[in-house]
Amino acid sequence: MRLESPALDSTALDRQCAHALRFLAIDAVEQANSGHPGMPMGMAEIAVALWRRHLRHDPAAPNWPDRDRFVLSNGHGSMLLYALLHLTGYDLPLDELKRFRQLHSKTPGHPEHGLTPGVETTTGPLGQGFANAVGMAFAERQLAREFNRPEQAIVDHRTWVFLGDGCLMEGVSHEAASFAGGQRLSKLIALWDDNRISIDGDVTGWFTDDTPARFRAYGWNVIERIDGHDVEAVERAIREALANAENDMGPTLICCRTTIGQGSPARAGTAAAHGAPLGKDEAAATRAALGWPHAPFDIPPELRAAFDARETGAAAHAEWTQRFAAYRARWPEAADEFLRRMAGGLPVGFPILADALLRGVQNAGLELATRKASQQAIGRLARALPELLGGSADLTHSNLTDWPACGAARADTGGRHINWGVREFGMAAALNGIALHGGLLPFGATFLAFSDYARNAIRMSALMKLRVVHVMTHDSIGLGEDGPTHQPVEHLPSLRLIPGLDVWRPCDAAETQAAWNAAVMRVDGPSLLALSRQNLPNQQRSAEQLAAIARGGYVLAEAEDGKPAVVLIATGSEVPLAQAARAQLAVDGIGARVVSMPCTQRFDAQAAEWRDTVLPPAIPRVAVEAAHPDGWWKYVTGCDCLARGDVVGIDRFGESAPAGALTAFLGLTPERVADAARRLIAR
Amino acid sequence: MRLESPALDSTALDRQCAHALRFLAIDAVEQANSGHPGMPMGMAEIAVALWRRHLRHDPAAPNWPDRDRFVLSNGHGSMLLYALLHLTGYDLPLDELKRFRQLHSKTPGHPEHGLTPGVETTTGPLGQGFANAVGMAFAERQLAREFNRPEQAIVDHRTWVFLGDGCLMEGVSHEAASFAGGQRLSKLIALWDDNRISIDGDVTGWFTDDTPARFRAYGWNVIERIDGHDVEAVERAIREALANAENDMGPTLICCRTTIGQGSPARAGTAAAHGAPLGKDEAAATRAALGWPHAPFDIPPELRAAFDARETGAAAHAEWTQRFAAYRARWPEAADEFLRRMAGGLPVGFPILADALLRGVQNAGLELATRKASQQAIGRLARALPELLGGSADLTHSNLTDWPACGAARADTGGRHINWGVREFGMAAALNGIALHGGLLPFGATFLAFSDYARNAIRMSALMKLRVVHVMTHDSIGLGEDGPTHQPVEHLPSLRLIPGLDVWRPCDAAETQAAWNAAVMRVDGPSLLALSRQNLPNQQRSAEQLAAIARGGYVLAEAEDGKPAVVLIATGSEVPLAQAARAQLAVDGIGARVVSMPCTQRFDAQAAEWRDTVLPPAIPRVAVEAAHPDGWWKYVTGCDCLARGDVVGIDRFGESAPAGALTAFLGLTPERVADAARRLIAR
Repeated sequence: MRLESPALDSTALDRQCAHALRFLAIDAVEQANSGHPGMPMGMAEIAVALWRRHLRHDPAAPNWPDRDRFVLSNGHGSMLLYALLHLTGYDLPLDELKRFRQLHSKTPGHPEHGLTPGVETTTGPLGQGFANAVGMAFAERQLAREFNRPEQAIVDHRTWVFLGDGCLMEGVSHEAASFAGGQRLSKLIALWDDNRISIDGDVTGWFTDDTPARFRAYGWNVIERIDGHDVEAVERAIREALANAENDMGPTLICCRTTIGQGSPARAGTAAAHGAPLGKDEAAATRAALGWPHAPFDIPPELRAAFDARETGAAAHAEWTQRFAAYRARWPEAADEFLRRMAGGLPVGFPILADALLRGVQNAGLELATRKASQQAIGRLARALPELLGGSADLTHSNLTDWPACGAARADTGGRHINWGVREFGMAAALNGIALHGGLLPFGATFLAFSDYARNAIRMSALMKLRVVHVMTHDSIGLGEDGPTHQPVEHLPSLRLIPGLDVWRPCDAAETQAAWNAAVMRVDGPSLLALSRQNLPNQQRSAEQLAAIARGGYVLAEAEDGKPAVVLIATGSEVPLAQAARAQLAVDGIGARVVSMPCTQRFDAQAAEWRDTVLPPAIPRVAVEAAHPDGWWKYVTGCDCLARGDVVGIDRFGESAPAGALTAFLGLTPERVADAARRLIAR
Repeated sequence: MRLESPALDSTALDRQCAHALRFLAIDAVEQANSGHPGMPMGMAEIAVALWRRHLRHDPAAPNWPDRDRFVLSNGHGSMLLYALLHLTGYDLPLDELKRFRQLHSKTPGHPEHGLTPGVETTTGPLGQGFANAVGMAFAERQLAREFNRPEQAIVDHRTWVFLGDGCLMEGVSHEAASFAGGQRLSKLIALWDDNRISIDGDVTGWFTDDTPARFRAYGWNVIERIDGHDVEAVERAIREALANAENDMGPTLICCRTTIGQGSPARAGTAAAHGAPLGKDEAAATRAALGWPHAPFDIPPELRAAFDARETGAAAHAEWTQRFAAYRARWPEAADEFLRRMAGGLPVGFPILADALLRGVQNAGLELATRKASQQAIGRLARALPELLGGSADLTHSNLTDWPACGAARADTGGRHINWGVREFGMAAALNGIALHGGLLPFGATFLAFSDYARNAIRMSALMKLRVVHVMTHDSIGLGEDGPTHQPVEHLPSLRLIPGLDVWRPCDAAETQAAWNAAVMRVDGPSLLALSRQNLPNQQRSAEQLAAIARGGYVLAEAEDGKPAVVLIATGSEVPLAQAARAQLAVDGIGARVVSMPCTQRFDAQAAEWRDTVLPPAIPRVAVEAAHPDGWWKYVTGCDCLARGDVVGIDRFGESAPAGALTAFLGLTPERVADAARRLIAR
């Protein structure tokens, strides 16, 4: 056995290291009786080349700001990453690998950020890890531009991403690659596991792209025809990619020809290797074929030593720490700002400022479209928060995402406004990458109807609890003539169903500022702002009411005698409509309370006392929103409620027409709301 | 004035025809005070080249099966299409153009299929029209392979698509173009409006792709550097593309350099031309600059004559009719089958067969995963319905979409199973195109969690009322170890919010067959089937119960004494769970009815008598589903209900763990449902 010799030559050591990764994956999948061995077996040598030779990281400090970022976009190969993290010295003991895919282990089926040290992003939904990596590389460059000083670079790392055929077939790979090419993100290096096998088998029948030519068309450097099982060949390609990075020549794709399930006599090169355990016999046959005599999960000490990155990692980290100390000596304010930003904290006193901004907006009392109020809020916040940056998927002057002196964040200009192009999904996934990188507070915008295009990336921002702001304008049939393709109907209630996503639909400029304040101060997840195209009147509020916006739902207007017979719940552009219905009911002597409910998630999170005060259990309720009504039954007749309720909404697609004609046609009128209230009271 | 001469030369006539399109767009947008003049002004000459010289269509017969298909993927330029339809002789009077973007006109803001004769698909959400066109071209080839006979082609038409930079930036363009290239869809010809302007302005800052190189990488023919304002040049390119089609060399992209808003002195070549009226002064300046003396909406007779396609269209149609008659004489059965298929009718007696299949499945009583039951249903239906075809987005052996002898539908093989590749959005949009083309009944499949990727195309299938079947397997945390990225939580309730989409979640093999039967027999919209990964037991049913599945909700198990104290509502894998809860409650002497609710949309469409019989208003209800609970409040406490209710569901993301451990951890247990029922009854 080769391993009996204590002094392996470098090539043999590489080979054995790759086998160590292979068998940890084989054995963990076998133990779980579930999982994906094929990718780790196919990318083992590539992983050795990167992780043993080039990845700059400190296993003892997974959050070191200037570490290289590594993304496993083909996340089903999670065991490859777990094996690497374990062997290089992260806090991921062997016992966790033995609990692969078990409840509450640190080794879930797909890598989950926040659960496992060293996992930079949650991957699995194909193509999105790649787009996250684009966001990370963008963030790196943005921060480097902002913080580095001549001869004093404190931000200078690379973003590496492994990806497979599946990632490349996904449309989001186009959006992300095109954006990365246009932005010339030179420190982004992707390694493609070109194994010509996807789940359905040999890709010849359905994936015939000339991928190198495609990426060249995006402005990428492409290094072709690398033998992915030759560590030296991969390493040479990586060095070439690093030279591209050094010379700012744009991102690089390294195309590695590999064999899925490499080493398995019966399954290598077939789709059977992809997503199922090899089985006891084939695992044994693979051991024999590769000359791996070790028991499951048994890794020889010399291979552990070969992987161990703690010493080199600590040294690299220490070198940076020293560099940062020198920087801090010269640029103390920038250094502190950098640390604050990377830690995700807001400037001292920010909540006080946010309150002051909110009061200012309320006092100004302007009648504005909430998209316009959002633009003003962005401008105010951008002055206080240099980390705030973002833009629109080619609807800048409709979404209203730019602000005075924002500048453009482009290949050669370091402003803060991003022209994302018509790339909603790529934008949202890149926002996740920017937030994951740290140091920046990103937002992106499109029409609410096209949140559909980005939906799974919005979900991922919630799953990862990222501070990302999704700005969605033209939030109802109120947009008018563009018609049903552009008019959201089901979007508001369906977005509210994504766990952990705060959906705000402000009714005026003050609620818009409050929503933005809440979004940037939120530490445990994303926020989505649904904003009107049309102007909305200012609502009067006391100081208590102004503060209550942050609770997600509050009494905006009480019945005149303080004894409401009915509660009218509304959001956004339907708040003035509810106010008008309240006035109509008052004529009939019916006292109606108007509750503004800009964020149901925040309201749900309040104590029962608050909720019961806003929505007294015994009083009938009518909810009104220019959206599909079904989400509101929870609030008008849900289990906390003892009275009856009704919902006025739109359970059909819209039409192309001027907004006024359309709202009348679809019955979004004060009369209808008042009638619903009268019917409830009469029952 | 050139027009004073009755005999315009060909070039001058082309120019005037282009101006006619330009000014109809300018004038209609001006009249509506809303709309997009820039694209029609920029693509006018391209439209003249195609519509006056090559498009084979019969304005009097917009549904002629062998017409060329024309798709305006950049749908905001709708006035270009309306102008063309009006001028070539479709039933679209000038008065409708004058009512552009008004309520219930035939000229909505974006083209809507089914509303306006000659509009082949609803466009506006960028990139999807292009993907629809790919589906149409695929359908054409599929039907040509099936029906054409040597020397007797009855299916032989082209699919033309106009698209802009926005379409090309969208990820779905990648998925669709890659699929079309791999499939070698030679009769697909795309004309790109390469005007270098998107809404944010000059695209140089955010769209730097080498698009010709990108499309060559997909296997397309690319004809570059065509002057899009030179009708002759465009025509030459079209002839070259037609030669590519003739020689089966793959699809063709014609790259036309154009100027957005061409002719407007102040706005041509700027984003200002894109989405707003020119305004009275600029419209007048454009008239002066282009030498167009005519009043708004006034088109000179000689230009009307030049566009009029009724005679040539009738001739082409008559030629085909003659050809079809000869075909019918030789192949009468095939001819009748072709006509049946293109009309969208099912074979005579199909409902009886469908019932027989359903009874057979019920009688077989197999315990199957519903995805497996779906595969068997597909196999049964495919024998009866040669129009049924479809496949999976690279999850064939997980989604279980293939069937015995299905064959593969590829570039060189004409089977009926489609390997869509990892292209969920492109798949769903192409399904819409296939359904729009007619003659085929398409389905596509992925994991339910990744319905997100395809969501807007699913919405579009509902908006267009298309007979498309979306097969979504692994429909809950029951999928287990793959973890939260792959476990749908919010997807079922959020898909139910899309107006017109029937969402089926069958609980066993019989309900699965019933769902498939309903989906293929539906004439007014799409269906989505949510199917389990795990095995589900067979439920006993009487003949009445079996028939009642089609009603979307029915009593599956009555309380033993026929007097239920509580109604348990469940779907899919939670039906057996509700049955177990019913048994537990019976031990306590509590009578519980189990209602299976596989399709809330179908249930909602029943008469109130049925709904009240299934869900008696005075009896408390508990709904249980392994999904976000909020959609169920409508059914357990909604306005038809007089009693209290509760919902057992999952309002958080899942975890990676074996399914059994996970359902226990998340409380999807009979005990919890029974407890909820006991609490309600005790109140």
